[in-house]
Amino acid sequence: MHDFPVPDSWLTHRVSYGETDTMGVVYYAEYFHFFERARNEYIRARGMSYADVERQGIFLPVRDAQCRYRSPAHYDDLIWVHTAIAEWRRASLVFLYEILSEDKCRVLATGSTQHAVINAQGRPVAVPDFLKFIA
Amino acid sequence: MHDFPVPDSWLTHRVSYGETDTMGVVYYAEYFHFFERARNEYIRARGMSYADVERQGIFLPVRDAQCRYRSPAHYDDLIWVHTAIAEWRRASLVFLYEILSEDKCRVLATGSTQHAVINAQGRPVAVPDFLKFIA
Amino acid sequence: MHDFPVPDSWLTHRVSYGETDTMGVVYYAEYFHFFERARNEYIRARGMSYADVERQGIFLPVRDAQCRYRSPAHYDDLIWVHTAIAEWRRASLVFLYEILSEDKCRVLATGSTQHAVINAQGRPVAVPDFLKFIA
Amino acid sequence: MHDFPVPDSWLTHRVSYGETDTMGVVYYAEYFHFFERARNEYIRARGMSYADVERQGIFLPVRDAQCRYRSPAHYDDLIWVHTAIAEWRRASLVFLYEILSEDKCRVLATGSTQHAVINAQGRPVAVPDFLKFIA
Repeated sequence: MHDFPVPDSWLTHRVSYGETDTMGVVYYAEYFHFFERARNEYIRARGMSYADVERQGIFLPVRDAQCRYRSPAHYDDLIWVHTAIAEWRRASLVFLYEILSEDKCRVLATGSTQHAVINAQGRPVAVPDFLKFIA
Repeated sequence: MHDFPVPDSWLTHRVSYGETDTMGVVYYAEYFHFFERARNEYIRARGMSYADVERQGIFLPVRDAQCRYRSPAHYDDLIWVHTAIAEWRRASLVFLYEILSEDKCRVLATGSTQHAVINAQGRPVAVPDFLKFIA
Repeated sequence: MHDFPVPDSWLTHRVSYGETDTMGVVYYAEYFHFFERARNEYIRARGMSYADVERQGIFLPVRDAQCRYRSPAHYDDLIWVHTAIAEWRRASLVFLYEILSEDKCRVLATGSTQHAVINAQGRPVAVPDFLKFIA
Repeated sequence: MHDFPVPDSWLTHRVSYGETDTMGVVYYAEYFHFFERARNEYIRARGMSYADVERQGIFLPVRDAQCRYRSPAHYDDLIWVHTAIAEWRRASLVFLYEILSEDKCRVLATGSTQHAVINAQGRPVAVPDFLKFIA
């Protein structure tokens, strides 16, 4: 949390029943849904949406995803998803995530996703200028 | 919409990529997740949470669920989920749902869920007084 | 079960952890995923796949879905999903489902889905001949 | 693929509509569901199930999960999930995964999950003997 990149964005999320499992905690795959929601909000906070990005013919498919689970989240918990872009490469970018408890005192999970920047034909392209505005 | 029961509650939801499918629209099973989120918020708006209900030893498992799909929702759409309790029976209750477009001009889906009222041993019980407050 | 339509098809499914919830049972929305898998297998058992149907420019979006939950399924249970087409209308069709325990002695759930028959432009069309083969 | 650990196990999976997204490919979080199904089958192939493990009071919560996406999977694809245990530590273990195309010629994704070994009180414990049989 101390060295989280800027600009960043914060999303709150209320844990639903459908996101939990028999262990009584949020199922591990659900964190990647949280990450997706958070990066959508990050882009939206910069004045466009990922849907706009696709309408410009640019797609950001996930090439790599990782999550470290530190403390479980439970049904009805309100959690924070903290997001920023950690790295811009020539034809890819990396989002970082932290999931925090409602009081922001506990880190529940940390993670990252690496995205290719491709055009509608699926070819890697250099990050277009309009996308750099989200940095 | 005209005859929707009261009290009611409204929840907004932003459609994520993970909720859509190859047809480019929200996958049909996801609406039942929206319904769950909406009834959670309905209960919360009455001053308790469904987690509190369970802590009192009362569970409301779904006995029947139904959805009618009228107009598709797409990625990044902001939708409204309108909810109320339509009926209280001796040991069950029925939630109604309407899913509306952002401008509330189009009904995207309507649905209902019937819930048994059971105790921790799984036996049907009469609706407890503390639960009647959510009516 | 006694009056289930023919032809029918049977799909086995092993319940995963990710399909369960805090109550320790399969989350109610997951049954609609089971239904989808079962109708895919029904079509496949007739010699084509739903992907083939779409490649012919015909789509079968769900217009209505319903499930009645009779007895819960748990993590690691092997379940059967029994499927058939109950009804052909001019531009729609109805699938029926039964979910049974491994020994087929208990009905866990029953349900149905109604599907429109539409073309790539989203317009309702009469059921094409190639699709009637799945009856 | 060449250096995959032994013993290993293979699971086939047919991609459902509900697992795909607007890009027409399997949504990235779904791969973690595939991984879970595969490690369940790995344990089952060794003569017990993960449900049995939990009945003995041992739980294997995911501490870290990672996936590298190499080539997309589409609706109706039949895929293979290849699994093995890569590493046993004092109170944790690591599963490795490869997802392959139906003809096993293309690697669609690779990944890993690290699991703590804990008891019912949530405390880390040394890997019990009965679990070593799955190695």
